Amino acid sequence: MKQIILFGAGRSATDVIDYLAKASIQNSWFLQVCDADKQLVLSKIKNYDNCSYLEVDIHDESSLGSSIANSDLIISLLPPALHSIVANACLQYKKDLLTASYVDEYMLSLDSKAKEAGVLFLCEMGLDPGIDHMSSMQIFDRIQNLGGKITSYLSSTGGLVSPNSDDNPWHYKFSWNPKNVINAGKGTALFLKDNQIHYTPYTRIFNTLIPYNIEYYGLYDSYPNRDSLKYIKLYNLNDVSTIYRGTLRKAGFAKAWNLLIQMGYTQDNFYIEQLDKISYEELSCRLLEVKRDDLRDKLIQFCNHDAETFLKLEWLGLLSKDTIPLKKGTPADVLEHILLEKWAMKPNDKDLIIMLHDIEYTIGINKHKIVSTLTLEGQNAVHTAMSKCVGLPLAIYAEYLLHNGRPFTGVHIPVKKEIYNPVMSRLAELGITFKEIESEIN
Amino acid sequence: MKQIILFGAGRSATDVIDYLAKASIQNSWFLQVCDADKQLVLSKIKNYDNCSYLEVDIHDESSLGSSIANSDLIISLLPPALHSIVANACLQYKKDLLTASYVDEYMLSLDSKAKEAGVLFLCEMGLDPGIDHMSSMQIFDRIQNLGGKITSYLSSTGGLVSPNSDDNPWHYKFSWNPKNVINAGKGTALFLKDNQIHYTPYTRIFNTLIPYNIEYYGLYDSYPNRDSLKYIKLYNLNDVSTIYRGTLRKAGFAKAWNLLIQMGYTQDNFYIEQLDKISYEELSCRLLEVKRDDLRDKLIQFCNHDAETFLKLEWLGLLSKDTIPLKKGTPADVLEHILLEKWAMKPNDKDLIIMLHDIEYTIGINKHKIVSTLTLEGQNAVHTAMSKCVGLPLAIYAEYLLHNGRPFTGVHIPVKKEIYNPVMSRLAELGITFKEIESEIN
Repeated sequence: MKQIILFGAGRSATDVIDYLAKASIQNSWFLQVCDADKQLVLSKIKNYDNCSYLEVDIHDESSLGSSIANSDLIISLLPPALHSIVANACLQYKKDLLTASYVDEYMLSLDSKAKEAGVLFLCEMGLDPGIDHMSSMQIFDRIQNLGGKITSYLSSTGGLVSPNSDDNPWHYKFSWNPKNVINAGKGTALFLKDNQIHYTPYTRIFNTLIPYNIEYYGLYDSYPNRDSLKYIKLYNLNDVSTIYRGTLRKAGFAKAWNLLIQMGYTQDNFYIEQLDKISYEELSCRLLEVKRDDLRDKLIQFCNHDAETFLKLEWLGLLSKDTIPLKKGTPADVLEHILLEKWAMKPNDKDLIIMLHDIEYTIGINKHKIVSTLTLEGQNAVHTAMSKCVGLPLAIYAEYLLHNGRPFTGVHIPVKKEIYNPVMSRLAELGITFKEIESEIN
Repeated sequence: MKQIILFGAGRSATDVIDYLAKASIQNSWFLQVCDADKQLVLSKIKNYDNCSYLEVDIHDESSLGSSIANSDLIISLLPPALHSIVANACLQYKKDLLTASYVDEYMLSLDSKAKEAGVLFLCEMGLDPGIDHMSSMQIFDRIQNLGGKITSYLSSTGGLVSPNSDDNPWHYKFSWNPKNVINAGKGTALFLKDNQIHYTPYTRIFNTLIPYNIEYYGLYDSYPNRDSLKYIKLYNLNDVSTIYRGTLRKAGFAKAWNLLIQMGYTQDNFYIEQLDKISYEELSCRLLEVKRDDLRDKLIQFCNHDAETFLKLEWLGLLSKDTIPLKKGTPADVLEHILLEKWAMKPNDKDLIIMLHDIEYTIGINKHKIVSTLTLEGQNAVHTAMSKCVGLPLAIYAEYLLHNGRPFTGVHIPVKKEIYNPVMSRLAELGITFKEIESEIN
């Protein structure tokens, strides 16, 4: 009986557990789930007989080792900093490892050891990173097999809210880690457009927008996302004059978010003591550097008299006379406190994933364009499209790997057909499909 | 024979050595100077018989201990991170310690230990911090002794270039640590103006200017400097409705520097590989996100068609087709490389220190204003006004301490009259004096 261990039982674990528990029934496998929160695990496995809670302290080398030694495949949904512990045990006991996290320097350094041990460490097997790699590479390989050259690649993804559950002026709710949203863009964005490299600093990122009209869902903006230049090498796109990766938000979001940045509400470099003695209005006065009587006018002026933007900021309560219920914190802490409430999904709210690849290529003298779009709505605040898209690629490939064995060894991300083909096929069977529109351009 | 040990023989050590070597001749004291660079020490002490090079590895506890045990007073001009090593040895052997660095959390934590050991750790004994504390507190104490209340305190300091040595459009040269200039303003500035607290983010700091007309020297701008609010407690200024500390630059500097920030030239959060394959022009294109042919126009537009600002940026070579002679670096590294050459003092250039306190107070129903200004020019690129103003307070108080003994124990900064009176008197004898203009205001 094959044994799978899943470390981490958080948001996206639900779909991994559901999928692999069912696959385990069919195949007589057994799934063990390890998490510091035992009750959380028990609640997620309670419907399945072939699952159990695995009680292991991952910091206890021998107990971790003996669990891993008795298993056939390891999946880690732990926080990225903890992957190294699991990875080292996997090396020692020669087990394959799957994660949805970015490959970091440390993971990369294990490549030769993984090859020596004859195991596969497959990372970035979620949505973004994950489905973005797989769906893009599938198109690129198809085009290149036809003798085509990719000349332009723009790819944008957003974890958003379904129009049916959209009841706020930002048209946004949290389906994922709020801190990532608040810190978005704090690095510099690097991308290539018409053969010109762009380094877009934080102060301009939310001003540097590409508009997209998504069928049924309407207008969205994409803002640039970290280092897109490295994807030239990663995707082997040596002929591109444009390469850009971005994040999608409903039109108007980025403009208003940019004002929060300009006001200083995303700053985390200084602490304010005794926040609980001042109001949101007072904090806004300090950040906009005006007296209370002038705040409203100043904010309107700051919004360049754009009513929709002003309403977004006002709706957040930035003019409220309520006391801030935090003892001490940065402006970013206050903003997070506001947004956690304002942008919370209600139990029956549905989230929305949009991923869009905008690709141009040439075959001979002919120029073509492909726009490939995934849109997926969740069921509710627990069974989100986000957790499905992060969890399913891991679960699907875990099943495939146990049936078919590893196609190669070492540290990898899913850019090769041996991986993306089975995963994309199964995702399509499960209703996660891209709609492709191809056209000739002059 | 009393023994003084000076750790660190860098820029401001010259004036400390010159002053204390002469004092030692008069008093039959002996000065030992310790630095990793033996030749540097020897070059600075070569004219003095009562000085020697002290060969101590400060990381070797026993050798450090035996040197300190045999001395009467320790001065540390080491990098701030190394003060803790010297401070602990001073505690162990019960010796007083003087530094010109900011009191950090660690130094503050030694307060009770210093009191137990019966020693004085006096920090922030340079220019800024140092002379700023002493000259301000001298005025405050005088006013408060007359029954006055301080209502407003604005204090600005600049390490600048003398008009006689000013031959560049920025009207600035480096007399101190270039990295501090490049990173200036990266924290948020906190200050109080007319009872309204201001939190000014990096993106607005160099736009938030107070103009000053300095007699003989002309127009300067002050931009706000880190956390001014903490000086309410530090200086015991409980009646102020305005408290502000700033940095002075020649008028026009801050406006142009703000554009370097907006362009992204001060960013240190991403590395560019193979810089030596591109030109400054290309880097500017990437940062301004334009094609080469449009760069000049875009930069002019970015400068809001302000010719003086544009000329400052052009003079830096941001449009130059020369290759950047660095293998790998951040935009801030490139900017530092440019400025180290462009803003270097020539051997006979004179620097200029300006410190200005702008104080308002009331006595009864009368309102008064004091503007107290220090201007001081250096002799040349080695004997700068900066190194004099940083070094002399330490040296003067070291001499005073050996003659008169410590007035109190524990960790202190020079805000008490027992310290500032003797230092300010002696500085005045040496030509470092403030010019005070007092007026009644309605």
